[in-house]
Amino acid sequence: MELIFREAERDDLERIVELIADDAVAARRTGSYGEPHVRGFEAVAASPDNELVVAEYDGEVVGVMQLTFIPGISRNGASRLLVEAVRVARNQRGKGIGRRLMEHAHERGRARGCALAQLTSDKQRPEAHRFYRNLGYEQSHEGFKLPL
Amino acid sequence: MELIFREAERDDLERIVELIADDAVAARRTGSYGEPHVRGFEAVAASPDNELVVAEYDGEVVGVMQLTFIPGISRNGASRLLVEAVRVARNQRGKGIGRRLMEHAHERGRARGCALAQLTSDKQRPEAHRFYRNLGYEQSHEGFKLPL
Repeated sequence: MELIFREAERDDLERIVELIADDAVAARRTGSYGEPHVRGFEAVAASPDNELVVAEYDGEVVGVMQLTFIPGISRNGASRLLVEAVRVARNQRGKGIGRRLMEHAHERGRARGCALAQLTSDKQRPEAHRFYRNLGYEQSHEGFKLPL
Repeated sequence: MELIFREAERDDLERIVELIADDAVAARRTGSYGEPHVRGFEAVAASPDNELVVAEYDGEVVGVMQLTFIPGISRNGASRLLVEAVRVARNQRGKGIGRRLMEHAHERGRARGCALAQLTSDKQRPEAHRFYRNLGYEQSHEGFKLPL
């Protein structure tokens, strides 16, 4: 399978927003593509601790995820890899692209010295939970959110 | 109550590790104070997207938390505040220090333009879950971890 992973470019952004929004849980909160996403993209691109990664299959962007590398004191001074906004295009699911995307995330985390990967998934996504458990993740935590 | 919040300094680190480790869930994985914690502290101090905050009460460090400010594309280009490693000294609990610490976290998040605060808490900590729900957090997600 001709699947490559690369850092997202500005020209990928409209497609990335489309992928993030194409989801029953996220659609209502993603918004339609516009200035706030451009500002978010620029802030991610400017941060040395963040990478926005796309999966490209035969020249088409079919997946996305955001990686954040977080230094810390707990767990014996371990750095963590936080994975957010994981999406695979609806018409490309079931081909193992999500698994390859996550394997790429873990490689990037190890390359940046992270000892632990972590992520949260909405309680409304039981199939995603199965996916992460199948990748070896332990479903050990409760996830909390608060609007500021 | 003479409670102040400030960024942690190198001299606070041994006490911070003690606070993080003084916990049934975290004790076995924090390790005793040493080089890995110093390296973690230096990495946090060097990162523009991370702040290690201590609560000081009558000149003693009685609480700690790590804040990470994360730009992003999802949720209409929102930045997020991630809160990790929240601890209040065992002999200082029940005085509202934890609540004040979290309120300080939210102020810092708003000051950095974050629209959302998020955190995870081990499923073995039901009293912490109640604490976060009482602060207005929605317990909406499952949290997953994988050693890398």
